[in-house]
Amino acid sequence: MKFTATQIAGILNGQIEGNADVSVSKLSKIEEGDNGSISFLANPKYTQYIYGTKASIVIVNKDLMLTAPVSATLIRVESAETAFAQLLEMYNQVKLNKVGISKQAFISDTAKIGDHIYAGEFAVIGENAVIGNNVKIYPQVYVGDNVVIGDNTTLFAGVKIYSETIIGKDCIIHSGTVIGSDGFRFNPQNDNQKIPQIGNVIIEDNVEIGANCAIDRATLGSTILRKGVKFDNLIHIAHNVEIGENSYLAACNVVAGSTKIGKNCMFSGQVGIVGHLEIADNTTITAQSGISKSILKKGEVQMGSPAFDANKYRKAYIHFRNLDSIVTRLNTLEKLNDLKKID
Amino acid sequence: MKFTATQIAGILNGQIEGNADVSVSKLSKIEEGDNGSISFLANPKYTQYIYGTKASIVIVNKDLMLTAPVSATLIRVESAETAFAQLLEMYNQVKLNKVGISKQAFISDTAKIGDHIYAGEFAVIGENAVIGNNVKIYPQVYVGDNVVIGDNTTLFAGVKIYSETIIGKDCIIHSGTVIGSDGFRFNPQNDNQKIPQIGNVIIEDNVEIGANCAIDRATLGSTILRKGVKFDNLIHIAHNVEIGENSYLAACNVVAGSTKIGKNCMFSGQVGIVGHLEIADNTTITAQSGISKSILKKGEVQMGSPAFDANKYRKAYIHFRNLDSIVTRLNTLEKLNDLKKID
Amino acid sequence: MKFTATQIAGILNGQIEGNADVSVSKLSKIEEGDNGSISFLANPKYTQYIYGTKASIVIVNKDLMLTAPVSATLIRVESAETAFAQLLEMYNQVKLNKVGISKQAFISDTAKIGDHIYAGEFAVIGENAVIGNNVKIYPQVYVGDNVVIGDNTTLFAGVKIYSETIIGKDCIIHSGTVIGSDGFRFNPQNDNQKIPQIGNVIIEDNVEIGANCAIDRATLGSTILRKGVKFDNLIHIAHNVEIGENSYLAACNVVAGSTKIGKNCMFSGQVGIVGHLEIADNTTITAQSGISKSILKKGEVQMGSPAFDANKYRKAYIHFRNLDSIVTRLNTLEKLNDLKKID
Repeated sequence: MKFTATQIAGILNGQIEGNADVSVSKLSKIEEGDNGSISFLANPKYTQYIYGTKASIVIVNKDLMLTAPVSATLIRVESAETAFAQLLEMYNQVKLNKVGISKQAFISDTAKIGDHIYAGEFAVIGENAVIGNNVKIYPQVYVGDNVVIGDNTTLFAGVKIYSETIIGKDCIIHSGTVIGSDGFRFNPQNDNQKIPQIGNVIIEDNVEIGANCAIDRATLGSTILRKGVKFDNLIHIAHNVEIGENSYLAACNVVAGSTKIGKNCMFSGQVGIVGHLEIADNTTITAQSGISKSILKKGEVQMGSPAFDANKYRKAYIHFRNLDSIVTRLNTLEKLNDLKKID
Repeated sequence: MKFTATQIAGILNGQIEGNADVSVSKLSKIEEGDNGSISFLANPKYTQYIYGTKASIVIVNKDLMLTAPVSATLIRVESAETAFAQLLEMYNQVKLNKVGISKQAFISDTAKIGDHIYAGEFAVIGENAVIGNNVKIYPQVYVGDNVVIGDNTTLFAGVKIYSETIIGKDCIIHSGTVIGSDGFRFNPQNDNQKIPQIGNVIIEDNVEIGANCAIDRATLGSTILRKGVKFDNLIHIAHNVEIGENSYLAACNVVAGSTKIGKNCMFSGQVGIVGHLEIADNTTITAQSGISKSILKKGEVQMGSPAFDANKYRKAYIHFRNLDSIVTRLNTLEKLNDLKKID
Repeated sequence: MKFTATQIAGILNGQIEGNADVSVSKLSKIEEGDNGSISFLANPKYTQYIYGTKASIVIVNKDLMLTAPVSATLIRVESAETAFAQLLEMYNQVKLNKVGISKQAFISDTAKIGDHIYAGEFAVIGENAVIGNNVKIYPQVYVGDNVVIGDNTTLFAGVKIYSETIIGKDCIIHSGTVIGSDGFRFNPQNDNQKIPQIGNVIIEDNVEIGANCAIDRATLGSTILRKGVKFDNLIHIAHNVEIGENSYLAACNVVAGSTKIGKNCMFSGQVGIVGHLEIADNTTITAQSGISKSILKKGEVQMGSPAFDANKYRKAYIHFRNLDSIVTRLNTLEKLNDLKKID
């Protein structure tokens, strides 16, 4: 796909400054741009780069003042940031515009398939599955029996969805993620026999899940990710967990069985949360922290393993770093006091 | 699958109280039950829910005394818990009762296949592989050359088994798990050249492995998971590790190369264990702990990173939380003593 | 594959001592060797095992002096270690010597395919992909549109490569690894809308990546792994990260967005690094550490979460372990001083 400056200015409703016929086929950062790429300048910190950039076109704010000549064609717009985001979005939609059912996909006779879907090579759609409109199922995806997938949802290559899972509309699930595997439950009273895991996973609308996550089905009932939840890569969610609306979990989080997490939470990378807890709305947890007790007050920030209030943790940690000098001071005091004793 | 109260009472050898013709098609918790579902009441704490439950059928203990009318049909049995577990098990077996070899599976001519197996679409079974009876190989599973899989083992969709792996009977391996990938070994004395990894992985009987785990083959010899080992999701096992019988590893554990772990160990989530250690039988490790030394005494409980005795860790951690006040006390003492000095 | 002692001695240019006709089909450790296996003895610590080994053939150093009879056939060579490594390498090459394009692979008409490649069953090669010579693409691998893969690279079963990824020569990528998934970026100023991720991933020559890793594409520009980088299993690399030449990351490392890591770094397991940092060349990080600040001096060793100088950390940690006795000493001093006050 090649576009000329004229075409792009047309789309973005901008004014051209320079060669209107130059064409571009890719997007770049202004400091890395090369010939044939289009970039943007919004942050004044980067203004220096416009004089040397090799990008063929740069989108800039209407009111940008230049102090030296520029070789790139400029397109002046109301907001360079918004205009570039618009281009990104267009580019992305073209890139991801797959449609049609491959002859090498396997679709069960009893599955119900919506309109305008994509089903790539070697994808499997199981019995009684219900697939909404505009769903994109990339190659080698597995959709188990009785799974329901809402409109406009995308499953990238190799996603595995176990039977009975329900996925909402406008979700994105990245490659390698597994949804609906058995919870980790064995009965120690009965020779550690496996406890059958017959619940399911429910994922509401507008959820995004990164690559290689694993989300277990409930023992009974449902493991639930509420609307707008966003997961990074390699996250583990155990049986019967519930994650509240618009909560964000960074990479390698682990949430153990039956824990309920509130809305609008933000957990940094490698956080672990033990089972059967309640975490209030708007909780923030710093990286590598371990939560061992319920957090009942909204809006707390916790840190440490086991975690407590982050400000208190940071204070304690500064002293931890100084423990060697603290002990030296203690030694001195002891000597001083012993001497006095001897006196 | 629909069952009437009469049919279920027959299976469970129970007495019906209420409408014997009502039918159900799913299992639910008593507090979440809806029309068409069957639930159970065993724990007296939940007795309150029986008066309002929307479940169509509830299995209860023989001797349950009601204090108000109940709309659900009751089935009275000796033990509601046992009876419900029996139903779960039945339900699970029906759900997982896949059998037959898909025309879209690829099975090497030289593979030996047992009776009554399931091999789903786009599964691959490599050269000289030996597959036991009643094995279930879900879609998109890869079974490499010379792999051996024992009777009644299930590999869920997308499991990848590298060549030469040996898996026992009655094992369950969840989606996305990789078994037999190369160990992480390079020769720093020789320009960091890869050290060929030509051992294998041996998994004994009755092992369950969660989703998206990665278990490396041995450099030479075997990486071994002994009978009854249970793994949660996203666990990393390095080359030449050995995990003893009936040990349980929770999600995101990491065991580095050549470490030997004993029997009946219990490791919580995100535990890390460095290479070349020995961990005694019955060791318990708390979440996020890091084991840097061998644990030679059986039955220890360790915590921390690096870990030591969990009770001692908890005591030290309480003081850590109080370090700010400890330092304040030290400051006070120093002032006090300085004053005396001046005196 | 069976080889006689005569054949192997021929390959290794060694002298046979014992039965030259004995044949072997596998490699083993000297202490575990059984009938039909070949082993080696290089480390004098293991000399004791040669008298009892059940291996059929043992490769030994030219100058090994025996003090008792040995039942195995010996092959004496200049260096037993080098000779055995040579055998390992040969064995590995035979084992991995897959070639040819399966009829059940799907290769887009617009893809360019090199000579002498392997493409296994149910592999997918997308539009305009460019595959070099001698590339091995195992079953169920997904290679997205516009991907470039250099000569001699191996992608094991089920690897998923998103569109626009560029992979160099002589790379090895293990099963379940996902490359090019979207970065985890949402716009909090705009109702948490997804920020389109339209950059790519570039992997240079001679990189090895373990199983079930997830490497996100850049938002704009490229996420880059430089020449000779080696990754263990289950590693997460966020958008726009750069990892310098010959750096080694052990299992379950997490590197957050836009962080730049230098050359020849060594990170132990479960290390986490926050976003937008710079880590200097030759940095070593101990297991489970969390890096929250840039490391600008080369060759540092850091430990802890948050991490600082490892030697200082170890000293502080010893005091942490002793906090209970430190507090007891403080109590004693306080009593002593209070008593004096009362005086």
